[in-house]
Amino acid sequence: MTPAPSGPTAPTLDDPVPETRLGGDLPIASPAEAASLVPDTATLLVSGFGGVGYPKLVPEALAAADDARELTVVSGGGVGDEIDRALVESGDMARRYPFVPNETSRAAANDGRIEFHDRHISRLADEVRFGGLRAGMRGETIAVVEAVAVGPGWLVPSTSIGHTPAYVGAADRVIVEVNRAQPVELAQVHDIHVRDAPPNRGPIPLDDPLGGTDGPAVRFDPEKLAAVVETDRADDPYEFREVSATDEAIAGNLGGFLEAELDRNPLFDEAANLQFGVGSLGNALMGALADVDFGDRPVSYVGEVVQDGLLDMLDAGDLRGASATSLALSAEGQERLFDDVERYAEDVVLRPADVSNAPELIDRFGVVGVNSAVEVDLYGNVNATHIGGTRVVNGIGGGGDFARNCRLGIVALPSTAVGGDVSRIVPLTPHVDHTEHDASVIVTEHGVADLRGLSPRERAEALVSVADPAFREDLDAYRERAASEGGNTPHDLDTAFSWTRNDN
Amino acid sequence: MTPAPSGPTAPTLDDPVPETRLGGDLPIASPAEAASLVPDTATLLVSGFGGVGYPKLVPEALAAADDARELTVVSGGGVGDEIDRALVESGDMARRYPFVPNETSRAAANDGRIEFHDRHISRLADEVRFGGLRAGMRGETIAVVEAVAVGPGWLVPSTSIGHTPAYVGAADRVIVEVNRAQPVELAQVHDIHVRDAPPNRGPIPLDDPLGGTDGPAVRFDPEKLAAVVETDRADDPYEFREVSATDEAIAGNLGGFLEAELDRNPLFDEAANLQFGVGSLGNALMGALADVDFGDRPVSYVGEVVQDGLLDMLDAGDLRGASATSLALSAEGQERLFDDVERYAEDVVLRPADVSNAPELIDRFGVVGVNSAVEVDLYGNVNATHIGGTRVVNGIGGGGDFARNCRLGIVALPSTAVGGDVSRIVPLTPHVDHTEHDASVIVTEHGVADLRGLSPRERAEALVSVADPAFREDLDAYRERAASEGGNTPHDLDTAFSWTRNDN
Repeated sequence: MTPAPSGPTAPTLDDPVPETRLGGDLPIASPAEAASLVPDTATLLVSGFGGVGYPKLVPEALAAADDARELTVVSGGGVGDEIDRALVESGDMARRYPFVPNETSRAAANDGRIEFHDRHISRLADEVRFGGLRAGMRGETIAVVEAVAVGPGWLVPSTSIGHTPAYVGAADRVIVEVNRAQPVELAQVHDIHVRDAPPNRGPIPLDDPLGGTDGPAVRFDPEKLAAVVETDRADDPYEFREVSATDEAIAGNLGGFLEAELDRNPLFDEAANLQFGVGSLGNALMGALADVDFGDRPVSYVGEVVQDGLLDMLDAGDLRGASATSLALSAEGQERLFDDVERYAEDVVLRPADVSNAPELIDRFGVVGVNSAVEVDLYGNVNATHIGGTRVVNGIGGGGDFARNCRLGIVALPSTAVGGDVSRIVPLTPHVDHTEHDASVIVTEHGVADLRGLSPRERAEALVSVADPAFREDLDAYRERAASEGGNTPHDLDTAFSWTRNDN
Repeated sequence: MTPAPSGPTAPTLDDPVPETRLGGDLPIASPAEAASLVPDTATLLVSGFGGVGYPKLVPEALAAADDARELTVVSGGGVGDEIDRALVESGDMARRYPFVPNETSRAAANDGRIEFHDRHISRLADEVRFGGLRAGMRGETIAVVEAVAVGPGWLVPSTSIGHTPAYVGAADRVIVEVNRAQPVELAQVHDIHVRDAPPNRGPIPLDDPLGGTDGPAVRFDPEKLAAVVETDRADDPYEFREVSATDEAIAGNLGGFLEAELDRNPLFDEAANLQFGVGSLGNALMGALADVDFGDRPVSYVGEVVQDGLLDMLDAGDLRGASATSLALSAEGQERLFDDVERYAEDVVLRPADVSNAPELIDRFGVVGVNSAVEVDLYGNVNATHIGGTRVVNGIGGGGDFARNCRLGIVALPSTAVGGDVSRIVPLTPHVDHTEHDASVIVTEHGVADLRGLSPRERAEALVSVADPAFREDLDAYRERAASEGGNTPHDLDTAFSWTRNDN
């Protein structure tokens, strides 16, 4: 699938930073010229993950063009307004996978103006390569990806890798935006391992979560390169909200649990490999790890996003390093990293998302996964994506990859939403992203429910104990009504959704 | 974790069949003597998977003993009446994982007389070894396993492997039942690869789904061997029901879909690796594969159970071979295999269940997984285990391992239950085992719903088209009511469970 390196300036492991951003004779184009190459019906495979490393000018030019297009847009993960606002408002986006982190595209999905489905991050590269989005991949397939450098048949991704290697491999044509606002030295954090197709794909060749030998270049058939657009537009990354007292209480409970578990579980004698989900709570929890006593064991982040909290830990020497697919930093975090990219590159490695999130690596390295949720039901089923069970927020992302395959699946969430009016511990959630089999420990500001080995009836009791006290009596009353109906996983289906409908 | 082979008669790869069933100086005991070694509170880790290869006399003796015990029973998968009836009726079973295939234990779980939780098969070995069933592992841990041969520090499993290697590794003491009703030549089908603990476990060293080099012996610390009981009690295996017209129609639709997919998906150019779930429908579907035109490509079964339908395919030369963890055959199928075990051993390999069901291998070999279900909701969420959402049947078993990690996840089920009175396509299932992300194709006797790339609203339309015609109008009415409520995954929560409650 991967052609040999092309051109004398294709970066290699010995020379990990390209000599120049434009390495050879390239089809330089304006954004409008590049956009004009996209037919009316097409599938755009765009780079970007965690709100960074996405193409900006070509999507904007597509939105500005007079042509009415019907586009399927597939990203690695979260991208910025230039894609998820502009192309929705212009009416050019018809279908979207795997994530709607932006209010505009999310509203369009929920109102039925675009057809959207969230997908597991670890599976998406294969899905795009091997027909897994069959009905959704329409027209010509065009990869539009951001890079810090490009040559004939190679490119070096910018602030995220996501599924860029798979997307340029699967595309009929490739359009590259070379971004001079991103340091070319980002090449030093990239390790681009491309997986072969089954049944001949071997294991992923990593015996250390921070290892890697594949270098920074994404290779592709040079004939595919249709346009190179130059830009210096910055990412429009996350803004993390202030850490709240609830966040701190959750972090405290999580830290206490982790310390106890590290001590009693011989599995963590040699190392602690941790993953935290995307977002403000995840970022706050990462930051709070500095207060956890990990003893002598090396602590690594083995997840999908490097957020600001991780830079603090790296700077403090509390972290051996981080493996991810995106530098999902705030604007301040980006500046901090860009100013010192060579130093951070010693401890940070970015991989394609089908490697960072690969079930086999999450299992191999015994990762402890910490993810958040919209709500959790009394049996430990987790809704991570749908408000009221119906209105999607973001999408499942990599949460399912880690929850399902990690050694210890932890869900950390505030016990209430909407200023305390709504319990996030509910009798039954109408939307399940992670089943009861994949969440082992639930942490709220009120405590830790360790569900390991508990039967469903016992789980319900444990989960009521970490709910907001204002809701415990009603939840216990539900448990009793349910139990009187019988069953290993009892429910009173007449009132199960009272919580969701807010009429309990 | 694995001590070196002990005793001159420990079988090796060069000498795969033990010279003798009792290889050395062993603590031979009667069933009652062995049972008396089990304390009042203990965790029994028993062999057995797919209703075969489980210990029989010691559990029966435990049930017959006057002592009142409080036992946690953890099996590999399905076991027979000697465990799941006798120990429940005697009141000795307090807790049970991961499966209740027997009416008695199932009723006890549903009535709250035992604490039961179903678990993913692929994860259970690690859970037992590394604290994943924490609250449930009570008292001394005693492995009680069936073997065709045993020596000091080694044993050769009988008709299933399941989690026997992990269980004898984790146990404080080991009791072995040596079964002379099982041919000792079963050693030739076993390949016992034991995984190290994270973070130092490497990849599973297989580049062929039918490969293997680890030999037939499960090794353990010889000091642990507390008793060896001799028996010639046969397994009490599955009885498959007659193949129905509905089974045949489902098989026909599945076959047609597979032929089309094999032709259009380059992923299957070189090989077709298929998995089918446990049970009568799974067995009927395996048998019907003989009618599918696979072209020149080799076809292998890469799953967890060898059922009778596979022997037909092997005999007909339609199958390259099979990899599983259990010979879950009917009594007739067992006789057929036992009569010719050396020939079948050329094409059949049994592995520990954490290898047969390993996510990394299911992914590596591009398995197509076909599993059944209780019901599927309009968005593709699958309930494989709970009648009415509350009363457990069996448990998730390996269904989630394959659905989540296979290249193409197919759910095959009749469109109705209870003689046509109940639709198995429902608006919303109260119990989700496999989420909408893991089921790509739903097959009933009425057709094939290919969900790949569809948004939830589109999925609902496709799923109504494979429902029983008698229910389509009501399901469409639900779709419309739900759509009027909005959301990317619309629901009308007031009436969503009408189907489950039978008041629609």
